[in-house]
Parts: sequence; C-alpha cells; structure tokens
Amino acid sequence: MKPTRRRFEAAEYAERQRRTREAMAARGIELLIVCDPSNMCWLTGFDGWSFYVHQCVVVGGDGELFWFGRGIDAPTARLTTDLPEQDIVVYPDHYVQSPDIHPMDRLAGVLRDRQLGTRRIGVEKDNYYFSARAAESLSAGLAGAEFCDATGLVNWQRAVKSAREIEYMKRAGRVVGEVYRRVMDVAEPGMRKNELVAEILYAATLGTADCFGDYPAIVPLIGAGDEASACHVTWDGALLEVNSGMFLELAGVHARYHCPCSRTLYFGEPPRKYRDVEHAILEGIDSALALFKPGNTCGQAAEAFFGTLKKYGYEKDNRCGYSIGLSYPPDWGERTMSLRSNDTTELETGMCFHFMPGVWFDDWGFEISESITVTPSGAECLSAVPRKLLVK
Amino acid sequence: MKPTRRRFEAAEYAERQRRTREAMAARGIELLIVCDPSNMCWLTGFDGWSFYVHQCVVVGGDGELFWFGRGIDAPTARLTTDLPEQDIVVYPDHYVQSPDIHPMDRLAGVLRDRQLGTRRIGVEKDNYYFSARAAESLSAGLAGAEFCDATGLVNWQRAVKSAREIEYMKRAGRVVGEVYRRVMDVAEPGMRKNELVAEILYAATLGTADCFGDYPAIVPLIGAGDEASACHVTWDGALLEVNSGMFLELAGVHARYHCPCSRTLYFGEPPRKYRDVEHAILEGIDSALALFKPGNTCGQAAEAFFGTLKKYGYEKDNRCGYSIGLSYPPDWGERTMSLRSNDTTELETGMCFHFMPGVWFDDWGFEISESITVTPSGAECLSAVPRKLLVK
Repeated sequence: MKPTRRRFEAAEYAERQRRTREAMAARGIELLIVCDPSNMCWLTGFDGWSFYVHQCVVVGGDGELFWFGRGIDAPTARLTTDLPEQDIVVYPDHYVQSPDIHPMDRLAGVLRDRQLGTRRIGVEKDNYYFSARAAESLSAGLAGAEFCDATGLVNWQRAVKSAREIEYMKRAGRVVGEVYRRVMDVAEPGMRKNELVAEILYAATLGTADCFGDYPAIVPLIGAGDEASACHVTWDGALLEVNSGMFLELAGVHARYHCPCSRTLYFGEPPRKYRDVEHAILEGIDSALALFKPGNTCGQAAEAFFGTLKKYGYEKDNRCGYSIGLSYPPDWGERTMSLRSNDTTELETGMCFHFMPGVWFDDWGFEISESITVTPSGAECLSAVPRKLLVK
Repeated sequence: MKPTRRRFEAAEYAERQRRTREAMAARGIELLIVCDPSNMCWLTGFDGWSFYVHQCVVVGGDGELFWFGRGIDAPTARLTTDLPEQDIVVYPDHYVQSPDIHPMDRLAGVLRDRQLGTRRIGVEKDNYYFSARAAESLSAGLAGAEFCDATGLVNWQRAVKSAREIEYMKRAGRVVGEVYRRVMDVAEPGMRKNELVAEILYAATLGTADCFGDYPAIVPLIGAGDEASACHVTWDGALLEVNSGMFLELAGVHARYHCPCSRTLYFGEPPRKYRDVEHAILEGIDSALALFKPGNTCGQAAEAFFGTLKKYGYEKDNRCGYSIGLSYPPDWGERTMSLRSNDTTELETGMCFHFMPGVWFDDWGFEISESITVTPSGAECLSAVPRKLLVK
C-alpha cells in the first residue's frame, strides 16, 4: 500500500478480517465472495472506481484472502491494499462486458485451481455488484459448491465504528459544514439550480485545509419549488425562485467516509406551514437524539420521532434513517439497520446513523437531518450545521 | 411530465417503446422487466437518484407499460414521465432494504394480479440493478413464468442516436470544453489533487450559458505521478508535482447524455517518452477516426489504432473504446459495443463511441480520447478540446 493511500493500520484490517471470519464460521460459511465495493474497501483498503466491472475480494475461513478483478485494475490494488502480488488475481480484458464469457466463469476456474471449489460459499445476493448472471456463472462453474446468501454479512461487521473511522466521519462533518457555509454565502433567488450545485460540489471537494473532500455516494439532491415533493430528483438548469423553498440533501465525505446532512432553504419569509413543520421536526429530533444510547433499539429512537410528529398531526410512513459509514455509489447507507418501528437492533456505542426525518407532501417537502454516533449519553452529532430552517 | 423536465417529445418515447417491443417479439419475449436506470429513462424519461432501491419499468409485448418503484419516488415519476397515474405502481417503504421481504416479491404479486404472471419474461440478468436475489424473488413468486436473459436488449436499441440525442451529446461536448478551459487556467504544480477536481466539478456542473452541466456516471479520474498507472484511481489530497504527468478522464454531461474526453497534462517540459507516446497515439487516432463510417466494424476501427501503436512498439491488450450516450452511475458506457478486434458489429450512422486509446505502463499512463459519432464520411468529434498532450 502506498503510504499516502493508507487509511488504517494493517492491524485494523486484520481485525476486520478476523471478525468477518468469525461471522462466517457462525453461519457455516467456508468461503465468502465479497462484491460490494464498500465491503471490499473495508476489508482490504481497495479503493478505485472499477466497480463498474465485476470484481471481488474472496475470503476463506482458514486464511485465504485475495482480490480478483480486471487486469488494468491490479495497479489500484497495489496502491491501496497490503495484498502480496500472488493475491492480486486478474482476468483478461476480453472478459469485460462480453455477451459470451463472464468474469465469474474465470473466478470459478481460479477457485477450482486453488481447491476452493467445493466449499460452502457465501455470496452477496442482494448487492448492486453481484448480478443475477454473476450468480448463474459461479453456480455453473462450481457444481460441487453449495451457495448461500451472505448479503449484509460484512456490512454488519461494519456497524460499530473504530475510533479512527469516527475521526474520518467527523472530518466529513467538517467538510459538510464548509458546504453549508458556502450555500449560505452564495445562494440567492435567480440563481440556476446547477449553479448552486456547482458551488456545493466545489466546497465539498475542496473540504477543509487539512481534510480533502472525497466524492459522495449520492450526488447533491435538490428539490426546489413543486419538485420538493420528489425526494430523489436531481438538478437541472431551472432558476431558483423567490418565496420558494427547497430541500438540500448533501454529504461531506473524507476518505470514503460520509457525513450526510440535509437542510431546507427558503428564499423570502417562510410561510406558516414551513414554520409549523420546522417546529415539529426540531422537537422530534430532540426527543429522538437522547435515545441513541446503548440498550435502546433502532425502533425506539424512530418511534420517539414518529410520536412527536404525530402529536403535531403529521404522518410519516417511511423510515427516518439508516446506518452510515464507508460507502460507494449508488447509496451512502450501509444497508443494515433502518430507523423504523420494526427494527429491533440494539444500539451500541460507536454505531453511526443518518437520522433523516424528512417529510414530503403533495407539492412540497421539508428535511432537517443529522448524522450521529451513538454514545453512552445519547447521540453525538458528527457535524455542526445550524439545525434550523435556513432562510435567505 | 413537467414541461421543464421534458427531454424528448412523446412521439420519440413511443418510437423507442415500439422498437423495444419489436426486439422483444424477435426473441419471443412477452414481458420485459427493465431495471437498468439508463434503459428506464430512455424508454419513459424517468430520471432520479432512486436506483439505489429496487425499481423497474415493465414492458408488455401487447401494450402494457408501467413504472414500479418505492412509494416516495412516485412524485419523480410524475415529474419526469408521461405515464398515467395507474401506471405508476408503488411498493410500501417497509420493503426497502429488509432482510425478510423483497420488492420483487411485491412485483410478482402485481404481475399475477394483472394476469401477466405466466408469460415468457425477459430480465436484465447482468445489470447492477438486477441482483441475484431479485431474480430469485421473481422466480419464486412467478412459478408459471419462463425467464430468459434480456441483458442489453434495450441497450442495443439505444445504439443509433436520434438527432435530438446527438444534439444533447454535442451540448455535453461544449460542457467538457469548458472544463478543460478551466483546467488550463487554474492547474499548477503545488495544487492539491482535490483542489483541481473541485475546479473540474465546478466547471462541469456550471456548463455553458445555455446548457446546464449534469452529473457524470463516473467521477473525474485523475492519476498523477506514479498513480497514473492505476487507471481507475480517484483523487486524494496529495500535491500535484512539477515535472510530473497526470491523466484526466472527464466527461461533460447534459440531460444525462455524456461526452467523455480524456487528456494527459504535464507540468514542466515533458520527457521524451511522453512525446513518443503522444506521437503514436495521435497517429493512431487519425488512422482510426476515418474508419468510423457505415459498413466498417468496431473491430476494424480498433485494429487500425492497435496497428499504429504496434508499429511504434507499443502493445495494448485492453479495448480502446465503447458505445456511449445516456447513462447513470457506475458506468457511462452503454455496455453493448466495444472497440476491440473481435467485435464484429457493423457501424451505422448515428452510433456514438468513446474512442479511448489510453495506455498504461508500470509507473505511468497516457490518455488522449475522443467521443465521436459515426457519419458517412467517418467520425465526427462531439467536443473540440485541443487534441494533444497538455503542458503547463
């Protein structure tokens, strides 16, 4: 690993691999094929935009661990991991996006050659980077193997963050602080949406004097005017209007660790309905933050928020947050815990969440969110953006 | 569809759907489940960053067409498509990232209710957005259906661009022109990599006075110094050094249409090896561009380039380009044609490619690329960035 590309000591990667093997053993999984780029990075450090082709990290219960990917991406593995040369295993370029042959055919051959082809193999069946065809190819190439679904197995090992991980997330929090400072400096009616996003991306990438801004797993989402009802809409070149509100769903990112932070921005004097929702959401956030401590569950924290909203007459039928950390597109969530009533996961110190109490109506929406880490005394916020309806 | 969100006339979407149904019929596919967000957008206009949850467009051979997705994304479907309300079909939020239930279980129920559950169904088995688990859920829920792999079926219909699509790609070309102007204005030794990328993202999102810059399906790739050997590495906060080269793999984007354009930038007096490769690559580009005309094949264009490289003593064993157009992360390629020797696809007027003749060595790399469209007289470039080694 190139020293400037090192994010964690070798011992921390080793401990992550140990925990993963322990979880594998508990489920009788002898070999794990990890295609989720976040999991690949967490286990080994591997970091590059090569996930648009098939690649994986293979973890054996009894000590094997190798990276498998496209030939031209081997230099990225050398730069960003501690893997020895024999554990950087490549496939030739004619396997890329070919209708006739599949990189997973090739991996099956590698596993057979290494006498690993008859194991009980865990695969991440519900991940963006493990397609239905990848599963079929592996299965056809390894007739003697038994496959099981290990979606989320590594993700769950990531739930409780190390001190260094939390440090990266706080740095990401400082980055998103800079982003909102820039928004408040430059945003004004008559500006085009893409102009505002250009400023956001500039500030988010510049970061702070000592923390570079990395790319977010989700681009800045901006819903303005009637489009604020559409919570995952992206920008166009339309003008931002006076006497109009918009939500901004943004993140600061450092070394792939995310600190999302959403706010609503209003140009002009906000109408009563904005102030009413703001009041309910801020009280709901306060009531929930205190509950993010060990022993409580995700569901309890969520219910506190939903209860406050209901008291004020608002209904929310979607989850109000999810676990966060290291991530790659298309999602900055970890896809394990959700903040919703039926999630009974017990909170532990060091877990991190994007507590995301947005509400959307037929023709507008409102978001104020906080990224937090669980501590014995309740949530600690990872960023310090003023928690209020932003007005200019 | 909201008028400001309309990218194509209703007739163009109808024609795309007709072509898709024709291709389905030719392969005996009665129902097509389209999960690739690029294909969803091309068929209906649907455009939002909601592809991190399961969603699709379902196309029936005999006229059905509906969008299926998460409840909170229905407003995005209303804003960006012409679909009537009954064809915007949603699943409840507790299906999102749940280990116990899957959105595709729900879709199976919708198909059964609509008497579509016993058809011959095409699914995009090798797409990021159709996971192995999605395939299993559908299969379990539709025992009477027959499934086949329709990966690329819609992508292939997208290969020849309409006049309006080419106009969007040329606008994207003007956007990337602005990006390189900014790079040449501000890049200098001692700048941090993330500072340069901040400038790139700013210019790429600002676009031109009349074309907003949209987000690219791949973030700016910058390989500087020894990292230039790693072709998919992303930035960090390291300083850019004098007497050092870097590749920049960037795209201009407008309304989801991409115009990628790579260049190599050298700070100082480039050493001989840079000039030698530049000479070979520029001659190789010239020899290949003339061949991008109807009747020739992808392989012939690629061979012309490989032949020139070889003449100068360079070997390249990976493809030198791929078809491009409308795209979403993680790949701006269309995943149909590749510019490599064994691709025998015949070129047609209106096809568009990123002709990407990069070469990577053990400790450096060099890229000069052009996005082009096929015309009767050879390639027309979609952007006008000076085609040379950039030096500052």
